[in-house]
Order: sequence, then structure tokens, then C-alpha cells
Amino acid sequence: MIVIMDSGADEEEIQEVEKRIRSFGYGIHRSTGENSTILGAIGSPREDVKEALEAMSSVERVILVSPSFMLVSREFKKEKTAFKVGGVEIGGGKVVLVAGPCAVEGRESYLQVAEAVKKGGADILRGGAYKPRTSPYSFQGLEEEGLKIMAEARDITGLPIITEVLDQHSVEIVARYADIIQVGARNMQNFKLLTELGQLNKPVLIKRGMSATIEEWLMAAEYLLSSGNQRVILCERGIRTFETTYTRNTLDISAVPIVKELSHLPVFVDPSHGTGKWKWVPSMSLAAVAAGADGLLVEVHTAPKEALCDGPQSLIPEKFSQMISSLRGVAQTVGRTL
Amino acid sequence: MIVIMDSGADEEEIQEVEKRIRSFGYGIHRSTGENSTILGAIGSPREDVKEALEAMSSVERVILVSPSFMLVSREFKKEKTAFKVGGVEIGGGKVVLVAGPCAVEGRESYLQVAEAVKKGGADILRGGAYKPRTSPYSFQGLEEEGLKIMAEARDITGLPIITEVLDQHSVEIVARYADIIQVGARNMQNFKLLTELGQLNKPVLIKRGMSATIEEWLMAAEYLLSSGNQRVILCERGIRTFETTYTRNTLDISAVPIVKELSHLPVFVDPSHGTGKWKWVPSMSLAAVAAGADGLLVEVHTAPKEALCDGPQSLIPEKFSQMISSLRGVAQTVGRTL
Amino acid sequence: MIVIMDSGADEEEIQEVEKRIRSFGYGIHRSTGENSTILGAIGSPREDVKEALEAMSSVERVILVSPSFMLVSREFKKEKTAFKVGGVEIGGGKVVLVAGPCAVEGRESYLQVAEAVKKGGADILRGGAYKPRTSPYSFQGLEEEGLKIMAEARDITGLPIITEVLDQHSVEIVARYADIIQVGARNMQNFKLLTELGQLNKPVLIKRGMSATIEEWLMAAEYLLSSGNQRVILCERGIRTFETTYTRNTLDISAVPIVKELSHLPVFVDPSHGTGKWKWVPSMSLAAVAAGADGLLVEVHTAPKEALCDGPQSLIPEKFSQMISSLRGVAQTVGRTL
Amino acid sequence: MIVIMDSGADEEEIQEVEKRIRSFGYGIHRSTGENSTILGAIGSPREDVKEALEAMSSVERVILVSPSFMLVSREFKKEKTAFKVGGVEIGGGKVVLVAGPCAVEGRESYLQVAEAVKKGGADILRGGAYKPRTSPYSFQGLEEEGLKIMAEARDITGLPIITEVLDQHSVEIVARYADIIQVGARNMQNFKLLTELGQLNKPVLIKRGMSATIEEWLMAAEYLLSSGNQRVILCERGIRTFETTYTRNTLDISAVPIVKELSHLPVFVDPSHGTGKWKWVPSMSLAAVAAGADGLLVEVHTAPKEALCDGPQSLIPEKFSQMISSLRGVAQTVGRTL
Repeated sequence: MIVIMDSGADEEEIQEVEKRIRSFGYGIHRSTGENSTILGAIGSPREDVKEALEAMSSVERVILVSPSFMLVSREFKKEKTAFKVGGVEIGGGKVVLVAGPCAVEGRESYLQVAEAVKKGGADILRGGAYKPRTSPYSFQGLEEEGLKIMAEARDITGLPIITEVLDQHSVEIVARYADIIQVGARNMQNFKLLTELGQLNKPVLIKRGMSATIEEWLMAAEYLLSSGNQRVILCERGIRTFETTYTRNTLDISAVPIVKELSHLPVFVDPSHGTGKWKWVPSMSLAAVAAGADGLLVEVHTAPKEALCDGPQSLIPEKFSQMISSLRGVAQTVGRTL
Repeated sequence: MIVIMDSGADEEEIQEVEKRIRSFGYGIHRSTGENSTILGAIGSPREDVKEALEAMSSVERVILVSPSFMLVSREFKKEKTAFKVGGVEIGGGKVVLVAGPCAVEGRESYLQVAEAVKKGGADILRGGAYKPRTSPYSFQGLEEEGLKIMAEARDITGLPIITEVLDQHSVEIVARYADIIQVGARNMQNFKLLTELGQLNKPVLIKRGMSATIEEWLMAAEYLLSSGNQRVILCERGIRTFETTYTRNTLDISAVPIVKELSHLPVFVDPSHGTGKWKWVPSMSLAAVAAGADGLLVEVHTAPKEALCDGPQSLIPEKFSQMISSLRGVAQTVGRTL
Repeated sequence: MIVIMDSGADEEEIQEVEKRIRSFGYGIHRSTGENSTILGAIGSPREDVKEALEAMSSVERVILVSPSFMLVSREFKKEKTAFKVGGVEIGGGKVVLVAGPCAVEGRESYLQVAEAVKKGGADILRGGAYKPRTSPYSFQGLEEEGLKIMAEARDITGLPIITEVLDQHSVEIVARYADIIQVGARNMQNFKLLTELGQLNKPVLIKRGMSATIEEWLMAAEYLLSSGNQRVILCERGIRTFETTYTRNTLDISAVPIVKELSHLPVFVDPSHGTGKWKWVPSMSLAAVAAGADGLLVEVHTAPKEALCDGPQSLIPEKFSQMISSLRGVAQTVGRTL
Repeated sequence: MIVIMDSGADEEEIQEVEKRIRSFGYGIHRSTGENSTILGAIGSPREDVKEALEAMSSVERVILVSPSFMLVSREFKKEKTAFKVGGVEIGGGKVVLVAGPCAVEGRESYLQVAEAVKKGGADILRGGAYKPRTSPYSFQGLEEEGLKIMAEARDITGLPIITEVLDQHSVEIVARYADIIQVGARNMQNFKLLTELGQLNKPVLIKRGMSATIEEWLMAAEYLLSSGNQRVILCERGIRTFETTYTRNTLDISAVPIVKELSHLPVFVDPSHGTGKWKWVPSMSLAAVAAGADGLLVEVHTAPKEALCDGPQSLIPEKFSQMISSLRGVAQTVGRTL
């Protein structure tokens, strides 16, 4: 950490700050510049120490030189994290396709989509049984009934299933059915939920918060890893920007190469939520794979017009199958399979 | 709701959309313009119906004319909501002062601040026992021990206490001690938590999410009211903007008059989190009261330099007392007391 | 346009608004809903009429149903705009590569880069002679001397040149040398400059403003087209988001398919400014082409460490050449050449 | 400046960077930490040097410790800048009221507003003769005719006038009529225009860009001061945020105390553009004065419903006069007059 002293700080004040820095167990390098003195605090960066020092009136600013995440970083673990769920390898050479409707709305319709996306080339089934909704008056999901339908679809298709957990009370029940547990964007900083999921023996996919920085997203994953769970997938799903007329969110494709350099964890992209419109899903899927994504989460619905949730962003199975062949070409170009 | 048809939509497609609109129980007005047809759907706006219609390829866009919140709105309830907590009236003529440290760090230091802010003019005591921290390695709060210390401070000072609940598992224990329960910015869209708090018989203060729109914030409060809790306080605490060098957040003072027009609920302002620096707390407190705030949440710490959390934004008790007299002048000018 | 009346508006007020709407030459459809009356104003949307109506106290809101741009839209012109500059077709089947250093810093170094990028596969040379700098104390460019060097590079390589115009006073001189004139992000809404460039007989590339919406960007292009210039290229160069630690801007790849649907104009992407770091340029170039970009603007410098401007985002010629072959694979997959 | 070396950098690379730092005339302090070496570059911060160093692959990041503005800073000039325009002191004890319509639309209507606001208590007249409009099809202002009308209003009322200059070609003509020249938000980084205005002998009011940081805004003012103009006013006018339903912009009241600490220049606030709705102008005016603003820019129009520009945000003269007395109370409380 770098402690920048106020330009008016005198020797006594500087020594007071140095004493405080040492009290936290850090070594010190003092550097006297033209206008201000800078103290290098030698040791691991800590957010709370930064705050404690910034509370001193002779301190102008404290800068955390290195990021405060550790276990998720490439410095901590050089080789890419890869693991298997069912027979599917995540973080390996193949780009993983996760597909299915936004919400599980009924048994028949779900089984129908499940078979269609399997045929189309999906590796994992998605579907929501518990739905986070801005309005208390919107459809909130089929809950356990939805989980049972997904489990049945897994039995029929042989594909593993991923679904979102909304709150602590349903962690146990969701874990009983799901192969991968999803943490939604609105829960990215629900730290107690993350800690609980970190203690489960289940892979977790954590979506990026709507206006989270990359560091905040990786810190959220750090909660999972530091609680004991190493099988974590990061998923970019669009960030909030000033553009709201033509897209629901702005899919941040650039997060893919950045996060893959900073972290050893696999990075997925959700172009359906990321754009909010099915017609942009194919081109953004291509872009994501071109940028190095390890997997895609795509919404597919047999009858989007009748969907109870997020219909506008769902592909029909035919469109899903069609885009696979172009995806294959791009995957190959960047040294991946699909 | 207004349904804007695609400019290329033909009569058959228009009728198909009209049929779908009617299936949700809405009446219809068709308006044929130069370039496109517009269908007015007569009935209460629903987010899920909007999505269902937008999934139809002949529909270009659906606009929710009226906001989707109801119980929190002035249309629903004209007169301002006011209620008492302990002897303190919230939403009445007096601007309510909530003061105390960010986190409860120990018994003695907390009791000391409590007495100091009471003497300085505070109406309610604040303090955090459970702290949401970006990093799993930062101080997470004293938990129940902290709640006990706050309860003791209440006994000594006679002031009611407010503290944050972080997760569902601690709702019961926090409710046992607190007079008002606080929902933090990161939990503003933790819908399950909101539903539980809505069923409690305790006032709730809900902070605005870091990049929430005003409508999203009011929709979150709607979860509380629609679950049965009418004693809700809205609290502006700064939004995320591109300015990060000089402030931690940008305190959105303009939210005060806007929300007070849209809703009957009392609106508080937290200038400490809102700016992140104690030196800007007095001027922003004055601005908040000038803009019509019903209350202020101010961080006060007897030794900010030794605080384990958010020291940089805490006033010392002397500064707190000093600012009260200017606040009184502004309150008077806008027809309030303090 | 749709005029939403205040829920309390009475018949007299509604008629007053209708009269005002008619005074602007619009037809009217009235639609009476449960809570409010909606007036459809039949005619072309106009921003100033919207404002005039919103000034009436009985009007709650006015919505411009269709976007206010016209000449740039696909509705106005269905077929993609394509034109030739030198021998290079812009907006055709081939993805156009524009390469060169950020600023022209000297004759020898520029000619060296020019020959290197030509050999590497560039179609057009870029370089800045007038540089917009946040600080008045930074290097501001070689001005006319820089233009002369670029012209010499054109003579030697046979490649057309593109360079930025900063202000009205230098329009004439820049136009004398350049084959394509670039408008930078900070000048996107310099409307007087746009009007002048619209009257020139030179193609113009207009970069998206740092926090511009897609509609604002297209409206800026509308200034060029409505002043008479049809040879316009749109260029996405990264928008400002909350992520500032790891990238300078967030490259909005999703803007490519969106703008290509809304407009007939060719869309380029600048991954160098868009990310601010050379190491992310190749993957974001691949993503841009996968998403359908018609061209790329890439910064290449033979000695980035000695660059006077934007060195961190410049590729060395070897890296530039290396990425071309992967780009070719992606281009082919999406039905383009390169 | 602080140069953070890559954690993998070896001694040779560190020395190469040190050599480069010295070549720019800086002294060096080396500080060897646990994970990385940090070099303090002793001397004035320079944006271009930062970029040059960051282009070196062994450098991870360069941090400009002190801001890059100088002449506008309190370090450079401790006492507040105050100057007179006509008989009006700017930056003194009195809060300055600038009032008038958004655009000059005609002689009679302008003179009428001018007299009304004078009577209401205005110190300076505002009005736009050249209007920046997002759409080329909107009313662009009366140009010189508008300036003449303003000059006539000055003769009649005795109040100085302020008006916006849009482009370089009209600098001379605007300067001939105006007492203060305004630079709009969209031109905040039109550096060539700023340089020209810096060479004029006229006070300049510079509005904050729509998504500008405080440092960028002060750097823009630095262009004016470094070109020779010391009579500069900073004006906050609302920044772009995610809230667009209820306000046009989000007025950043917190910018007032921050900028007043960083700079000696007077700070004005424009609550009319800042909110976009006249009904929020009075409360935000009160908040601005409470926060320490040196002046207000308020839009007043005798017939806002017929305004050709920004009617929704204009007060009628009666409302303007009414708010003055509350403003006076707040001004007094914070030690100012009005």
C-alpha cells in the first residue's frame, strides 16, 4: 500500500502515521518528494487498514497497489482451473454450451426445450425455479416443483442442470437437485449467501453484478474460494450503461480476456441477458467465443411469445442450432472446440 | 401500457397482438399513425406482460406509462406517512437526527459515542453489528455482542436504536434488539429478505442501491409494503458515478424532492456514506435539509483514526454538535424544526 | 409522439394540449385509459415539440415513439452504404484494416510504421497531427508538419490516410491532406464542426462519444448527412463505465450489430482506444469482426515505449501481423474477407 | 508520480525504467516491497510521461499522486478568486443570481422576462442566441439578432448579460456583446475553443461536461487560465446517471464543496438544466446555496408552454420571486447574503 501524506504534513504527523502503519504489522519505506511525502507500507494490502489510515487527517490518500483478491488470482494459481460436472469439462478445451428457458414454466414445455437444445448441441441445461423479480407482482417461479421438472429433464437427456439460488433458506433444496448453483447479478454481493455456498460441495456460477467493477466481482468469487469452494465459474451478463433504448444491458465482452488474465477461473458469457433481445444473441455469442469465453449461457424457448419471463431474449431451438455451426468456426480459429 | 408495433406489421399481426393483450385482461385502443400502429393497453401496468408482448416479433417496444409501484405511491395514499419509534416521530415536522459510529467496535467506545451524540442533539442511535464487506478478510462486525452493546446504550440514553440486518438467518436476532431495521444498499434487491422484513412488526429503513434508479428503489420498498409493513423509511446514501477520486459515492440530493413527490414515505439522507469524507458531511447535511429531507444518518466516532470501519467519513462529536446549529437555521427556513 | 396527460387533467386541459399539438401540424388520436388519457400525435417526431408540450403542466410526459434520426436510418435507405476511398472499398465484403500510430511524432518513425503496417496487411494509414489532450501541458501534435509526413507516407505506400480534425479553423488544412477525416469522441456533439464537415466533399469517420447513447451518436451522424455528406463511417471506441482499474474504456462490441440494424452506414471498431492496453487488442479485434464490424482502427507503433502519446495501447508491427491470420479465420466464418 | 513495477520485473528492467524516468527530468526513490518494486518519480506529474512509462512492459501501472491541474488549484492560489462584472461581484459574499430564458426567442418576450427577473432580484441576465441541439432539425437560436436583443435588455435593466458561445467562428461576435461568455457542457473538452477564450479579455463560465469527472472539469478550466484568462467561473449543471425517468440529469450538489476546496475559482449551480423540471428548481436552489454555491443560473420564462427550447425547466417570474426569500434565509445561515 502507498500512503500519500497531505502536502502540509509536518515531521511529527508523518511519524504518527508511520507508527500507526507499523501497528498493523507493515514495514515502511519513506520517500520525500517535492510537494509531498509518500510512505510505502510493505505487506499484503488490506481494505480496512486503508480506511483506518485515511481517517488520519494528515493522510491525503491510500492506494492499494496490488488487488485485494488472492485465491482467485493467477499469482496464486498459475494454471487454469478446470473441473468436470457430469461428463462435461468446464474450463477445458471445449467451449461449454448451457441452454434452456429463463424460467421453468411447466413440465411439458420444459422437457420439450430440454430435448431440443440437447439435439441442438447443448452440454448443460439451464432453467429458473426461483426468479428474482423487480416487482412483487411478477411471476416468481415454480420453486421446488420447477427443480423436480429440471431433475426429470436431466434423467431424460443425460445433461447436468444449473439453476439459480435466490436466498439462504433455499440453498439446501436447490443443492439437492442442481449440478451447478447459479448466483444472480443482484446477489453478487450477498456475502452471507456466498459464504454458505462456499461451504457446499457443489460448483457455483457467479454472475457479475449490474454495475460491479471487475475487482468487486473477483472479490465476490474470493468469498466462495476462501470458504472452501474451488469449483467456481465467473459469468459476464451485461452491465448497466446509459444505453437503455436498444439493449437492456451492455454486454462487456472485454471482461473476458481481462478476467482470464487476472484469474485462473473459467469465464462464461450470457448473451441473452446481456443484450435482452434474441436477435443479437448469435452475433454476441460469436464475439464472446472469439474473445476467449469458456462457455455460453443461452436462453432457448420453444414459444418465446408465451414465456412468463424474459421471452424477448430467448432464441427458438432452430435459431440456436443454426448459430452452433458459425460458433464452431470461430472456436476453431481461436484454438478451441465446440 | 403502450404497445408500439413494428413499422412493417400487417393487419394480421396487429390482431394477433391485440388478442394476446386481451388474454391478459386489458382493454385496447388502437391508434394508426403515419409510420406505425400504436396499441394502448388499458389496465394496470405489469412488467411480465410487457416482456410477454415484447417477445412477439411484430412488437417493437412496450412502454409502461405509469410506474409499476402502487402502495408506496402518492396516488395510493395522499398524506405523508408518519409514525413514532420510541418517542421519536418519523416523517413529522422535525428533521430526525440519527447518529453513531459505522460499526460497534467495543462496549466502552460505543457507550461514549452514544452519550456524546445524545448530548449533541441526536434522536436515534446508529451502529453496525453485522457489516457487509467487499473483502472476506475485513472486520465483519461483533454480531450479537454488538447488538447487546447497542441495547445497553439505548437503556442509558433513552434513544431508540437502528442497525443493519445482513441476511435472513439473522433477521430474528436483529429484530429482537433493534427499534428500526436497516437494509443496506447491497441488499436493496434481496427480494426474499425484503419479504421477510415486510412480515415483521418493526419499522424498516431501506437504503438506495448503489446504481439503482428511483423506480427500482421504490419497487424494493413496494416489496416491504405489499408484505404488510407500512412503517418504511427510504434513505438516499450516494450513487455510483464516474467521480471516484474525490468522493466514494455521489450523494444524490435531487432524489429527496423527487421521491417525496412520488411517495408518501419519509426520506432520509446519509451524507457520511454518500460522500465518504467527514469534511463534506456538514455542507451536504445542510443541503439535504434544504432539499426537504425528513432525517439524516450521520456517522460520529470519538476516535475516527482508530475506527475499524469507515473512519474517514466519521465526524468527531464536537463537529457534530457544531453543525447542528446551522442545520437548525436551514430547517427553519424550509418550515421544519430540528 | 405519445403525450401522456397527468392523471388529474380535466377535459379543458386536454383540449388545450390537443390544440397545441395541432398548432405544430400533427394529427391526434385520443385514448382514454383507466387512470390517464393518452394523446397520439400523428406526424414526424420532433425534440423541440416534445419539450414544448412537456412544459404544459397538465402533460406528464411525452414519448418519441420513433427515433428522431432519419437519413442515417435503414428505414430511409435499406441497402448498406458502401463507397471507395483510394482503391479501398468501405462497407463492402472486406473488413477494412486501418493502422498506424496514435500521433505522428516524426518523419522517419512514421514512414517506418507505415511501411510495416502496409506489409502486415493494412488498407489505410492512421495517424494524429492534431491531438486532443486533457491537459494543456501535454504534447499537442505536429500539426501541418504531421499532415505532410502522412501525405508522404501515402505516396510511398499507396495507402489512403485518415487523420483527426480538432476544430473549425483547421478543417480546410486537414481536408487538403487527408483522404478520410476523423471526428474524435470529444467532438461528437460539436455540432458546428459537424455541419462544416457535412459540406465538404470528403468521407468522415465519426467516433462515438465517451458516454453517448446510440441514438445520440446516430443523431450526430445525422448532422453530417443532413448537411450533404453521405460518405460517413461510424466508429465505436469504448464507452466510459465504472471499470477504470483494468481498462481505460469499455469497448461496446454490442453496438456493432445494433447500429448495423438501425443504420445503413458502415461501422468500424477501435480496439486500441477501446481497451487502452495493447495486450487486449487482438482478442477484442477478433470479437469485433465476429460481431460484424466493417473495419478496425488499430494503433501500431514501432517503439511504443518511446511514443509521445498512447503508447500503452499500441501493438508492435509483429503483433499486428500475427493477429491478421486469426482475424482472417473469423472473417471467413461470418462471411467476410480480410 | 508513482511507478509500480510488474511483480516479475528483474533488476535490469527496473534500471531501464529508472533511466527513462530520469530522461524526463525526474528524481527517483526506489522502494522494494514484498511482491513488487515501486519507484517514486520526484517532480511535477505529467499525463504524457505517465503514458510513456506505462508503455514499458515491465511497468504495471503509473499513478499521478497529485492532480495535474495547477493554476486553478488552491495550492497555487490560496485566496478565493473574486472579480466584478458590471457592478456585480462574482465570488464575493453575495450569492449571485443569473436568470432568464433558455433561448432568446424574440425581442418583446425577452425584454419582458428581463424586466421581470430584474424586479425579482436577478443580478445578471442569461439567454441563448446560439443553441447546441442534439438534432439538426431543432431550433438553433436567433444568432446575432438574439445577441442584439440581449444587449438592449442590458441597456434597459442595467444588468450584465451572459450567453453561450458554440464555436470558434462566433467567438468574436459573442465577445462583442456578452459580459460573460458561457461554455456549454458539450464543449467542455473543446480544447481549441477554450484556448481562444483564454486569450480574450472576458470572464468565462464553464459548465461541467455531462459525464466529466471533477479533475477533467478543472483541467478544462486550466486551459482557460493557462491561456491567460483568470476570470473563470465553474458551473455544475447535472451529470448523466442511470436515472432518466424522473430527471434529465442528476444535479451533483456535492461537487460544490469539493471543487471549492480544490480550487479558488467561484462555483455556480444550474438547477434548471440540472433537473430538467421547474418544480424541482426551488428545492435544488436551496440545496445549492446551503452547500456553498457562489451563484445560481435559473431559467425563467414568462410563458414556458410556448418556449421553443427547454420550457419544462423554466420557472415563471412569480415562482422565481417566491423562491428568493427562502434562498435569503439559507444564504444567511451559511454566512452569505443574497
